[in-house]
Amino acid sequence: MEKNKLKKTIIKIFQKFKLSKNHADICANAIINAELVGAPTHGLSRLKMYCDRIQKKLINPKPKIKLKNVSQSATHINADDSIGFVAADIAIKKAIKNAKKTGIGLVAVKNSGHYGMSGYYAEQAVKKNMIALVFTNAPPAIAPHGAIKSLFGTNPICFGSPTASKVPFILDTSVSMINRGKIRVASRSNSKIPEGVALDKFGNPTTNAKKALKGVQLPIAGFRGSGLAWMVDILSGVYTGGNHGGKVKDPFDDFSGPQNIGHLFIVMKANLFQSNYKRRMKENIKRIKKLPKLKGINEILYPGENKFRRYKKNYKSEIKIPKDIMEDIQNLLM
Amino acid sequence: MEKNKLKKTIIKIFQKFKLSKNHADICANAIINAELVGAPTHGLSRLKMYCDRIQKKLINPKPKIKLKNVSQSATHINADDSIGFVAADIAIKKAIKNAKKTGIGLVAVKNSGHYGMSGYYAEQAVKKNMIALVFTNAPPAIAPHGAIKSLFGTNPICFGSPTASKVPFILDTSVSMINRGKIRVASRSNSKIPEGVALDKFGNPTTNAKKALKGVQLPIAGFRGSGLAWMVDILSGVYTGGNHGGKVKDPFDDFSGPQNIGHLFIVMKANLFQSNYKRRMKENIKRIKKLPKLKGINEILYPGENKFRRYKKNYKSEIKIPKDIMEDIQNLLM
Repeated sequence: MEKNKLKKTIIKIFQKFKLSKNHADICANAIINAELVGAPTHGLSRLKMYCDRIQKKLINPKPKIKLKNVSQSATHINADDSIGFVAADIAIKKAIKNAKKTGIGLVAVKNSGHYGMSGYYAEQAVKKNMIALVFTNAPPAIAPHGAIKSLFGTNPICFGSPTASKVPFILDTSVSMINRGKIRVASRSNSKIPEGVALDKFGNPTTNAKKALKGVQLPIAGFRGSGLAWMVDILSGVYTGGNHGGKVKDPFDDFSGPQNIGHLFIVMKANLFQSNYKRRMKENIKRIKKLPKLKGINEILYPGENKFRRYKKNYKSEIKIPKDIMEDIQNLLM
Repeated sequence: MEKNKLKKTIIKIFQKFKLSKNHADICANAIINAELVGAPTHGLSRLKMYCDRIQKKLINPKPKIKLKNVSQSATHINADDSIGFVAADIAIKKAIKNAKKTGIGLVAVKNSGHYGMSGYYAEQAVKKNMIALVFTNAPPAIAPHGAIKSLFGTNPICFGSPTASKVPFILDTSVSMINRGKIRVASRSNSKIPEGVALDKFGNPTTNAKKALKGVQLPIAGFRGSGLAWMVDILSGVYTGGNHGGKVKDPFDDFSGPQNIGHLFIVMKANLFQSNYKRRMKENIKRIKKLPKLKGINEILYPGENKFRRYKKNYKSEIKIPKDIMEDIQNLLM
């Protein structure tokens, strides 16, 4: 579907589900961005889920989002069960504003929901010449080191930085071996997942996506990845007032209450300590790109480059929508 | 050797190498702490290296450390080629002070050196009821994803948080499969390193510690770990004004100039957003410890617990010093 037409369609759907025009617009932009950067797991495939949760009164379409400044640098946001996109959009803008005042802005969000991709918010800060660290927790997917039951979410660690070019440095990596969304997509299409990324519910290795969804995903690097997932749970859940310790609900199949996801945004002026920060980034990237490469590797890419290229390429053409999701869209419009 | 006697000995050595009593004391505490927590790679095994670098005028024993407040929250420190322990000690204390004012303190350090363990500084913040994120870069050890030459250091990610007990949550994990110090210790004792953690200089897998030191270490989780290492290099090197992009010198065998390591400390009041933060941490940890466990696992430990137990155990007895290091100490005293 053509981008503008798709955007209008998404806005229409969210407005039908009682979101304001402004909030519907924020959601549509985030969803289309996910499609354009080649992350369909965080795009249209979730549209029906968001609407289902609004209908079941688990996402509040008319949230009274409360901001409380606890200092010049720090703000706490109670998102009132808003759709995650809207809470995160307000939060990153506030973090940027705080950072403009004191060099560093800290914004903690509670009572939010799934907000799509962390990198999308980090990019907003990078466009204002700022560095961003973004943390969010997520429903149980990864077993803590030593356990055979999922508890941590795929809990991404996200870091964004300006560069000397228009391609930002955006690291947005889950601490699981594979993104849960990818397993979900594999499950929908009955395709297999790689070996070594998940166990079934009995603790046995599996390549069956459906079994993996019922079992546990493995963290990267054993206790190290488990520790990083734990850190993200603390920063985004314990610290903010959000759910934590395995209490974040799965948005697709747990309708027993709102998700109450927590997010944490740390934003810092890029040239706070070094006025030539961008030139330093240019030198840093140049040195790394010049290294001798492994056989078969033509170019060393920094995090975010691939995504930017996909965005540029996809921007020129229509967005391809799988048949089942097209059906979702048609049903949601009715 | 008995702890107090060892401390006096280390202070004596550093004073002989022109450090002030106060600075020598800071160094001795950090080194002894590394021995007590069971991290000898960051303890006495580096004593001779520090002294060698002082003697070669690469570490400045009488640094004029300059602090510049760029805002109420943020401070930049030029450590004037100080020994890392001293620069980091001043930096974490300043970050805590800034956080007391605005909820969040940010301190960037340049022209520093190896400071021992990141977790040691995070602990100082935790004792003041604060959360800490600590980043430092290090000499080339890990090949960026796609490269066959080391460039990133083992670049640890460190996160500390108060808990409801006296055992702090301290994650201090390098993003390499194995700590460089462990390879160095294996090399000294001619023992093997595990498979899959390093390549020799030709790009072939090796379990020979000496060959691994000349080759490259592998990051955790491929491109994810490589991206995390890159993030740490940017935060602690590019951002602070320190060396970066492979320019941090190996303290043991590169005497061509000071290391100019950079560090970044982000400290936040633990109860900034939730007054019952410690109770929330208690609940978080309780839920995770109660999970069903893998066969052979009796207890799920949080990061820092093992280290705390080793500390308590080792605190009661004398510190064992290997013969070669005892010889170093005797030579340094002469």
